[in-house]
Amino acid sequence: MVITFGEIMMRLATPEYQRFSQAKNFELSFGGGEANVAVSLSNFGIPVEFVSRLPDNDIGNACLMELNRHGVGTQHILRGGKRFGIYFIEKGAVGRASKVVYDRTHSAISEIEKGMVDWDNVFKNASWFHWTGITPAISQNAADICHEAISIASKKGLTVSCDLNYRKKLWNYGKTAQEVMPKLVAGCDIILGNEEDAEKSLGIKPKEVEVETGKIKSDAYLAVSEEIMARFPKAKKVITTLRTSISASHNKWSGVLYDGEILHQAPEYDITHIVDRVGGGDSFMAGLIYGLMTYKDDKEALNFATAASFLKHTIHGDFNLATIEEVEKLMRGDTSGRVSR
Amino acid sequence: MVITFGEIMMRLATPEYQRFSQAKNFELSFGGGEANVAVSLSNFGIPVEFVSRLPDNDIGNACLMELNRHGVGTQHILRGGKRFGIYFIEKGAVGRASKVVYDRTHSAISEIEKGMVDWDNVFKNASWFHWTGITPAISQNAADICHEAISIASKKGLTVSCDLNYRKKLWNYGKTAQEVMPKLVAGCDIILGNEEDAEKSLGIKPKEVEVETGKIKSDAYLAVSEEIMARFPKAKKVITTLRTSISASHNKWSGVLYDGEILHQAPEYDITHIVDRVGGGDSFMAGLIYGLMTYKDDKEALNFATAASFLKHTIHGDFNLATIEEVEKLMRGDTSGRVSR
Amino acid sequence: MVITFGEIMMRLATPEYQRFSQAKNFELSFGGGEANVAVSLSNFGIPVEFVSRLPDNDIGNACLMELNRHGVGTQHILRGGKRFGIYFIEKGAVGRASKVVYDRTHSAISEIEKGMVDWDNVFKNASWFHWTGITPAISQNAADICHEAISIASKKGLTVSCDLNYRKKLWNYGKTAQEVMPKLVAGCDIILGNEEDAEKSLGIKPKEVEVETGKIKSDAYLAVSEEIMARFPKAKKVITTLRTSISASHNKWSGVLYDGEILHQAPEYDITHIVDRVGGGDSFMAGLIYGLMTYKDDKEALNFATAASFLKHTIHGDFNLATIEEVEKLMRGDTSGRVSR
Amino acid sequence: MVITFGEIMMRLATPEYQRFSQAKNFELSFGGGEANVAVSLSNFGIPVEFVSRLPDNDIGNACLMELNRHGVGTQHILRGGKRFGIYFIEKGAVGRASKVVYDRTHSAISEIEKGMVDWDNVFKNASWFHWTGITPAISQNAADICHEAISIASKKGLTVSCDLNYRKKLWNYGKTAQEVMPKLVAGCDIILGNEEDAEKSLGIKPKEVEVETGKIKSDAYLAVSEEIMARFPKAKKVITTLRTSISASHNKWSGVLYDGEILHQAPEYDITHIVDRVGGGDSFMAGLIYGLMTYKDDKEALNFATAASFLKHTIHGDFNLATIEEVEKLMRGDTSGRVSR
Amino acid sequence: MVITFGEIMMRLATPEYQRFSQAKNFELSFGGGEANVAVSLSNFGIPVEFVSRLPDNDIGNACLMELNRHGVGTQHILRGGKRFGIYFIEKGAVGRASKVVYDRTHSAISEIEKGMVDWDNVFKNASWFHWTGITPAISQNAADICHEAISIASKKGLTVSCDLNYRKKLWNYGKTAQEVMPKLVAGCDIILGNEEDAEKSLGIKPKEVEVETGKIKSDAYLAVSEEIMARFPKAKKVITTLRTSISASHNKWSGVLYDGEILHQAPEYDITHIVDRVGGGDSFMAGLIYGLMTYKDDKEALNFATAASFLKHTIHGDFNLATIEEVEKLMRGDTSGRVSR
Amino acid sequence: MVITFGEIMMRLATPEYQRFSQAKNFELSFGGGEANVAVSLSNFGIPVEFVSRLPDNDIGNACLMELNRHGVGTQHILRGGKRFGIYFIEKGAVGRASKVVYDRTHSAISEIEKGMVDWDNVFKNASWFHWTGITPAISQNAADICHEAISIASKKGLTVSCDLNYRKKLWNYGKTAQEVMPKLVAGCDIILGNEEDAEKSLGIKPKEVEVETGKIKSDAYLAVSEEIMARFPKAKKVITTLRTSISASHNKWSGVLYDGEILHQAPEYDITHIVDRVGGGDSFMAGLIYGLMTYKDDKEALNFATAASFLKHTIHGDFNLATIEEVEKLMRGDTSGRVSR
Repeated sequence: MVITFGEIMMRLATPEYQRFSQAKNFELSFGGGEANVAVSLSNFGIPVEFVSRLPDNDIGNACLMELNRHGVGTQHILRGGKRFGIYFIEKGAVGRASKVVYDRTHSAISEIEKGMVDWDNVFKNASWFHWTGITPAISQNAADICHEAISIASKKGLTVSCDLNYRKKLWNYGKTAQEVMPKLVAGCDIILGNEEDAEKSLGIKPKEVEVETGKIKSDAYLAVSEEIMARFPKAKKVITTLRTSISASHNKWSGVLYDGEILHQAPEYDITHIVDRVGGGDSFMAGLIYGLMTYKDDKEALNFATAASFLKHTIHGDFNLATIEEVEKLMRGDTSGRVSR
Repeated sequence: MVITFGEIMMRLATPEYQRFSQAKNFELSFGGGEANVAVSLSNFGIPVEFVSRLPDNDIGNACLMELNRHGVGTQHILRGGKRFGIYFIEKGAVGRASKVVYDRTHSAISEIEKGMVDWDNVFKNASWFHWTGITPAISQNAADICHEAISIASKKGLTVSCDLNYRKKLWNYGKTAQEVMPKLVAGCDIILGNEEDAEKSLGIKPKEVEVETGKIKSDAYLAVSEEIMARFPKAKKVITTLRTSISASHNKWSGVLYDGEILHQAPEYDITHIVDRVGGGDSFMAGLIYGLMTYKDDKEALNFATAASFLKHTIHGDFNLATIEEVEKLMRGDTSGRVSR
Repeated sequence: MVITFGEIMMRLATPEYQRFSQAKNFELSFGGGEANVAVSLSNFGIPVEFVSRLPDNDIGNACLMELNRHGVGTQHILRGGKRFGIYFIEKGAVGRASKVVYDRTHSAISEIEKGMVDWDNVFKNASWFHWTGITPAISQNAADICHEAISIASKKGLTVSCDLNYRKKLWNYGKTAQEVMPKLVAGCDIILGNEEDAEKSLGIKPKEVEVETGKIKSDAYLAVSEEIMARFPKAKKVITTLRTSISASHNKWSGVLYDGEILHQAPEYDITHIVDRVGGGDSFMAGLIYGLMTYKDDKEALNFATAASFLKHTIHGDFNLATIEEVEKLMRGDTSGRVSR
Repeated sequence: MVITFGEIMMRLATPEYQRFSQAKNFELSFGGGEANVAVSLSNFGIPVEFVSRLPDNDIGNACLMELNRHGVGTQHILRGGKRFGIYFIEKGAVGRASKVVYDRTHSAISEIEKGMVDWDNVFKNASWFHWTGITPAISQNAADICHEAISIASKKGLTVSCDLNYRKKLWNYGKTAQEVMPKLVAGCDIILGNEEDAEKSLGIKPKEVEVETGKIKSDAYLAVSEEIMARFPKAKKVITTLRTSISASHNKWSGVLYDGEILHQAPEYDITHIVDRVGGGDSFMAGLIYGLMTYKDDKEALNFATAASFLKHTIHGDFNLATIEEVEKLMRGDTSGRVSR
Repeated sequence: MVITFGEIMMRLATPEYQRFSQAKNFELSFGGGEANVAVSLSNFGIPVEFVSRLPDNDIGNACLMELNRHGVGTQHILRGGKRFGIYFIEKGAVGRASKVVYDRTHSAISEIEKGMVDWDNVFKNASWFHWTGITPAISQNAADICHEAISIASKKGLTVSCDLNYRKKLWNYGKTAQEVMPKLVAGCDIILGNEEDAEKSLGIKPKEVEVETGKIKSDAYLAVSEEIMARFPKAKKVITTLRTSISASHNKWSGVLYDGEILHQAPEYDITHIVDRVGGGDSFMAGLIYGLMTYKDDKEALNFATAASFLKHTIHGDFNLATIEEVEKLMRGDTSGRVSR
Repeated sequence: MVITFGEIMMRLATPEYQRFSQAKNFELSFGGGEANVAVSLSNFGIPVEFVSRLPDNDIGNACLMELNRHGVGTQHILRGGKRFGIYFIEKGAVGRASKVVYDRTHSAISEIEKGMVDWDNVFKNASWFHWTGITPAISQNAADICHEAISIASKKGLTVSCDLNYRKKLWNYGKTAQEVMPKLVAGCDIILGNEEDAEKSLGIKPKEVEVETGKIKSDAYLAVSEEIMARFPKAKKVITTLRTSISASHNKWSGVLYDGEILHQAPEYDITHIVDRVGGGDSFMAGLIYGLMTYKDDKEALNFATAASFLKHTIHGDFNLATIEEVEKLMRGDTSGRVSR
C-alpha cells in the first residue's frame, strides 16, 4: 500500500488551443501532484490511498467519485474547509507557452490543522509514503502536517519519497522553500527533481546547465546528485527528470538516477506532438515507484518511469492512463505507434 | 449615466440538465446582481458604469472584455486582490431544484478597502446609483464601501436604488443582515425585494403569505410596502417581485409597485418552459430603472420591468439580452411567440 | 414521381436557446419549403426530384450530398450563380419568439433565367408538380420560371399543388404578391395555406378570425375556401393549416380540407414541448401529397398530413424525419409517447 | 450489503432530441436494470455489490471504472465472453416516442455458465438479493444462473426482491416468460412490476385498466396483487409502479404497495418536463429497497421510492443521482423547485 | 461500374486524443475496407455499387443514408441479420499507438448465406470487382460468398482486384488465412498488400525488411512481387504500400507497383501531422483503381494512388474525401499546403 | 489614435480538420484584414477606430459587440446595406491546403457610397490611417472611398500605411489591381506585402524567387523594395513578409524591412505545428505599426512584428491575441514554450 498526501485541485482547461479570452467552456478534470501519482500507481495495479482535505460540497463529492473511478482509496480524505483549489489552464503551441492561473488560496488543505489526520492509522499496512514540495509551499499548517507525516512514516519504516517540485508562485506565507524543504527532505529515501528544483528548494545548483536555451547535459547532474546525497544521508536514490523544451509542442524527455555509485541514464524520447505535458513529472514519479517495487534493477525502474511519463505527454489531463503493456512496449524500443488492432 | 457597484463572478454551469457529478465541461459566463443590472441597462441603451474590483490576471481580463462586449463602462473597475469569485450552477427540472455552489470567499471585492474607489469621480455625470443586499453581505469592508457610496450619491442628488437580495449563505463575517441593511436602505429612493427579502433583511414580515406552497397574495404586500415606506422615509417607491414556483421548470411571475398611494399590479406571466431563471430579479430591476427613466407612468415602468424579466427566463446566463422591441411586444399583450421572419 | 422546384438554403442555427449575440457556433443544416417537401416525400417512399440552382462550390456540393442522403433526386439541379442563400435562426421559448434573419439576396436561384430548366425533360415520368409562394417572391426571373413550370406541368396533365407561403420580407423586386400569385395559383389543383396566406397572397380575407390572440375558428375558413375555389376553378381541394400559438414553446395544430363540398376537419394536436417548428407547414404539405396519393379518402389524407406535421415539431431542422409507422400510430389515436423498445 | 445480478450495457444516446439518422455523436454512459438499482443504492449509502460478466477489453474496463465511480462493488464481476451488450437510444418528445435499439445478442452474460459465480462467497455478509425479469430473458444460461442465485439466497435467508420487467424483444431463446418466470418469482419476498408485467410474465391480468389511453385506476391493482400473493406465498409485498403517459414529454407517476392487508397508495407526481425516463422503474426499486431497510413504515418506503423515481425522470442517463435530502424534501410536499443556494 | 463487397461497420471514435476510459462521447461514422474503396471511387466520379448485408433497423438505415450521401449505389445491399458490426477506436499520438476494439462478431454479413446475393444481376454492367482479405476472415459463410463472387466475376470478364488486408484478430472460425486466401487470390488480376500481408495471407515472406524498426527497403519487395505473380498467374499487377511508422503522429508513405517487368516506385510522402490514418490502404486501393481506369500509364496510376492516400491521412474518418484536383496538385509536386482562396 | 478602414466578415470555420462536406457545425467568429489590424493594435494598448459598413440586423449587432469586446472603437461604423460578408474556411493539414470559400458579394461595404463617411470627423485626433488592397478590390465604390480616405489622411498629415494584400478572386468589377492600386499606394508612407503582392498589385516582379517550391531568398526583395520606393516617392519603408510553406502544418516565417538604405532582416521562426495561419499578415502589420510607434529602431519594430505574427499562427481565429509580454519574450530569444505558472 502506497500513501500519498497533498492537494487535489479542480482543473479547468480551455478547449483545444483557445486562449482564456476566447473560452466559452472549460473542460473539467481534477489533478494535483500527489493525486496524480496515486492515480497512476492505481492504474498500474498498486494499492494506494490518497490523503487530503476537501470541502464538504458537491464539488468535493465529484472529486471523490473521480478518485474512486481510478481505484484510488479515499477513506482517509477529510471533509471540511471553505473551498476547493482550482487551476485554470490554456494550452500553448509552438512558441506560445501554456499558461496556468492558480486559484488555490484558502483551499481546504491550506487550512488543515495538526491532529486532523490520524497518521498512525493511515500508515497501517502501508509500505511507502510519497509527498511533494507543493504541499509545504501552500501554508505553514500544510508544511507542519507534512513534516508530521514524514516523521511518523520514517519511524514506522516506510520508504519515503519526495518530488521537490518547486513552484515559485506558491511559497508566499512568509517562508522560503530553502527555509522549509531541507528539514522535510532529510526524512526521504528517494528524492526526485527536475533541473531547477534542487537549486530553488535546496540551494544546490547545477553547473554548466543552460536551461534557457533548452540544452541540457545529463552528466552535469552527477555533481548535484552527489551533493544531495551528501547533505541528506537518508537518501538512497536521487533522480532527475530531463526536459529539453524545443517548443510548447515539441520536447525531448529523459531522466537520470543516481544510486550513490552509478548515474543511470534513461533513453531520451522525442515528444514531437505533445498532447498535454502537465503531470509529466508526476507520471515519472509514479512510474519510478512502480518500477522500484517491481523490477530488481534500478536501471529498469528508471526506464519504466521515463517511458511511462513519455506516454503521459500524449494523454489529456493530469492523470497518466498508460497501461503497463504500453510502457513495456516502449521499453522494448518500439516507438513506432502502429495501430493496435 | 447609471452607476452600479458590486461583485461580478465567474459562472460555471453544467451543460443542459447535468448534475455536478456528471459534468465533464462547464459553460463559462459571468454574472452577479449589480453587473446583471448594468448589462441589461446598457442593452436598453442607457449609459452605465460598473464599479467593482477584479484580480489582475487573465480571468479578470476576460471578464472586462465581456463587460465591454455588452457596452458596460469599466473605467472605474479596480484591479487587485487574490481571487475572482466563482459560482457553480446545475440547472434543475420539474421537482429537482437548481443548485448553486458559491466559491466567492476571499474574492477581490471582499477585500476592497476604504478610499480605493474615488466616488466623487465615479458619480460625476451620473444620475442614478444602484446597489444590492449582496455587497454588504460579503464582508465588513464591502459593507463599508457600500455605505460610503450611498452617502456620497445621496449628497450629490443621485437617485439611489436597492435590491434587498437576501442571501442566507453569505452574511457570515459576524453581522446579520438586519444589523447592517437598515442603515444602508435608509439612503434609498427605490427599494426592490422579493417575498422573503423584507423579512430577512429588514425584519418586516409579510402576513398571510404561504411561501412554501407557492401561493401568494399580491395585496398582502401592500402592508409590507407601507411599513417599509414608514421606516425609510426617503423611499419613494417600494417594489416586490412575485414568483410562484410551480416547479423548477414552470413559474408564474409578476410584480407590484407601491408609490406611497397606489399598489400597482403588473400582469402575471406564465413561464411554462423556463430556460434559465438566474438573474430574473436583476432583469426586473434593470427594466424598472429603464422604465422609470423612460415612461411617465409608474405602472408602465412596472409593466416593462415584469415583461423584461419574463423574457430573461427564456435566455441562458445571468444577462438579460431581450430587446426593447421584444419587451414592448409583450407589454402590448402579444405572448404568442410567433416566429419573427 | 413528384417534382418540386424552389430554393434550398443553408440553415445556420444557434445552439439550444442561444441568442445570436451569444452564439460561438452555428448548427449547419439545409432547408427550404420545396426541398423540405421533397425530403419528406422521399422519406415516405415516394420518388421525388428537386429542381433548383446551386452555386458550383463546396457549399453547393455539401447540399447536394445532403439531398442524396435523403434519397431526393438531384439530376435536374443546375449549378451556377454567385451565392448560396442562407438563413440564420435562433430558437425562441415561451414569450420570446424565434427569430429568422434571411441572407438570400442574389442567391443562385434568384438569378435563374428562362430556358435554363428543360421542363419537358424534368416532367418526363412525373405525375405531380409542387411549388410554393416563396419562389415567385424571390425575383422576377424566379417568378417567370415558376410560371413556365406550372404551365408546362398543367399541359402535361400533372397534378399541380401550391403552398401559398406568404413571406412579407421577400417580395421586394417591385411587385406585390397579389400582383403575381393569382396568375400562378390559377394553374393549381391543390392549394394550401395558413391563416394569413390567402389574404396576403390572393386578397381573400378570412372573417372573424382573431389571429393575434391565437384563437381561431376553423369553420370561418369555409368561406375563404369557397371563395378560393370560385376564383380558381382548376382547384379541386383547398387546405388550411391551423396553428394556435399559445407560446413559442406550445402550439396547437390542426388543419381543414375543403373538397368543394365538405370541409373536413383534422384532430387538433397539442404540441406542448416544441422542439422545432420551422418546416411545419412543409411537412403538412408532404403528408398531404403522400396521403392523397396513398389513401382513398381525403379525410385520411388530411389526418396523415396533420399527424405527420405534428411529429415534425418534435424534430430538429427543416426536414421531417418521421416514419409512416409513427404517423399512422398517431392517426390511430396513440399519442402516449411510450418508449418503443 | 445488497447484491444485484444482471447485465450492464453500454448506452449510446443521440444528443438532445436527434433522431438516429441525424446523429454524428453518441453520448456514452452505462446502464441496465440491476446495475441501475446498485448505483442508486450506493448513492443512498447502502453497501452494494453488482455481479455480472464483462468482456476483458477496454470497454469492459471503462464500465468497471464507472461502477467504481459510483461506489458499487465490482469484486465479483467476471471477465470474459466476446462482447459487451449495447443499447442505442433516441429521446422522443411530445407525440414522438423514444426509441431503443438493442444490440445485446451474444453478450458476455448471455454466455455465462453454471459454476462461474461462487454464490456462497458472493452472499457472505449480504442481507438482500435483487434480480429482474430481464436476466432470465437473455438466455437459458442466464436464466439458470438466476435460478441458482435465488435458491442459494433464499436458503441463506437473504431477502429476495424482483422487478418483473417484461421485455417483449428479449425472450427469444425458445421459452416464454410465463414458462420461466413463475419458478423464479416463487423464491421472492418482494415483487415489483408495472401495469403490464404481471400479465406478460405471470399470466395474471389486471382488469378494467385501460392502458392504451393512459388512464389507470390504482385500485384495480388490488386484485392483481392479491392474486400474486396467492400464487407466490413467499411474497410479503407486491408493488406496482403506475405511469400515465400523457406524452413522451409529460407523464404522471405513482405507485401502490400491497402488504397482504392494505394497498398503500403513493402521491401522484406530475412530471411535466421529462429529462430522461429510462431507468425510472429501477430507481423506484432502489428507493423501495432503501426505504424498506430504513423506514419502519411500508407507506413511507413506498413514498420514498415514488419520490426518488420522480427525481430520476429529471436526470440524464440510466442512473438516479438524486440525494436522500432531495427525495425527502419531495416527501415533505415541497415540489416547488426553488433554487437551492 | 465498380462493385465492391464486404462489411461496413459503425465506427465509434473517442474525441481528439481521448482514451477509452476518458470518453463521454463517441464520434459516429461508418467504415470498412470495401465500403471505403467504394466511397472513394464515387468521390472520384466512378459509378460504384457496394454489396453487403445490414440489419433491418435504424442503424442499418442510417448507414444506407450515409452511403447514399457519398453517391455509392446501395441497391444490392441485403437487409437482415441480427447486428451491425462495430469498431471502437481511440487515436494515438507520438509513442502511444491508436487502439481498435472490434465488436463485429455475429454481424449480419458474417451470417450471410449462399444464394442470398444474385451475383449475375450484381455484375450486370460492371467492369470491375473488388474485395479484401477481411471478408473471408469473418466467417466460413462470408468466405464462401466471396469465392462465389470472384468466380462469377472472373467468368464474366470483370477485372478482379484484391487487398490482402491481413487482420490477425479475425480468422477465428477455424481456418487460417493461408488455408483460405490463396484459392481466392488465384482469381485476381490486381493484388495489393502492405509489408506484412503477403507473408501472413499467402506465406510469401519479404526478405531483409526490418518492420519493427520502421526502416523499409522498397526494392526488397521486388522478390515478393515476383513470387506472387509466379504463384498466381492470373495476376497482372502486384502493388505494395510502404508505410514507415516513425510514430503514431508521423509516418512516411509510399508504394511500389510491379507489372511483371518493372517495379515502379512512387514518391515518398512525409506525413508529419497525421489526422487519421485508418483507411489509408483503402484510399490507396481506390486511387489505384481510379488511376488504372483513367491514366494510360501504370506509373501515373501508382502516383495517383499514393498521393490520394497521403491526403487521406489528413482527413477524419475512414472515407477519403480528397478531390481529384487536390490529388493531381500533389502529383505535380506541390505539397506546400498554401491556402486555397 | 489609429484608423483602419475595410470590411469585416463573418468567419464560419469547420471544426478541427473537418472538410466542408463533413461539417455539422461551424465555429463562428469575425475577421477581415483591416479589422484584424485594429483588434491587434487595441490588444497592444493602442487606441483604434475601425471604419466600416454593417447591415442593421442581429448579425451586424453581434459583430459590433465582438469589436467592442476587443476594445476597438466602433463609433464611425455605418449601418445599412443588405448583407454581411461571409467567408467559410476548412483547415488543411500537411499536404492538404486550407480552403476558403468567399460569400462577400453585395456586402454592405461593397455598396458604400461617397459622402457616407465623414472622413474629416473620423481623422480628428488620429495620427495613423491603415488600409489594405482588399478594399479597392471589392467594388468601384469601395475603391473610390478608399482613395478619398487616403487623400484626406495625407492632407491632414497622418501616417498612411497599406498592406497590398492581393486577392485574385476579388477584382471582378471590371478593373484590375494594377489599374487601381498604384494611384492609392502613391499616398502611402508604409507599404507592406508578401512575395506575390508587389507583382500582382503593382507589376513589380521579384526576381529569382521560386515561390512554388517554397524556397525564398530574402535578399532578392531588396531590388523589389528599391523599385517600389522609386515609383512611390512618398513611401518611407517597404516591408515584405516571408513565408516558406513546407506544408499546411509547418511554415517558416520571417520578414524584411527596407528603409531606403538598409534591408533589415528579422529572425526566421519555425512554425512546426500551425494552429491557424489566417490573419498572419495582418498580425504582422499590427505588430509593425505598434513597433514603429513604440520603438526607436526600425529593426526592433520589424522584430516585434515578426514575433507577434509568429504567435498569431498558434491562435484560433483571425485575431491575434498575443500579449506584448509574450511577443517580447520571443524577441529575447526564448522560444522554448515552457509552461508559464
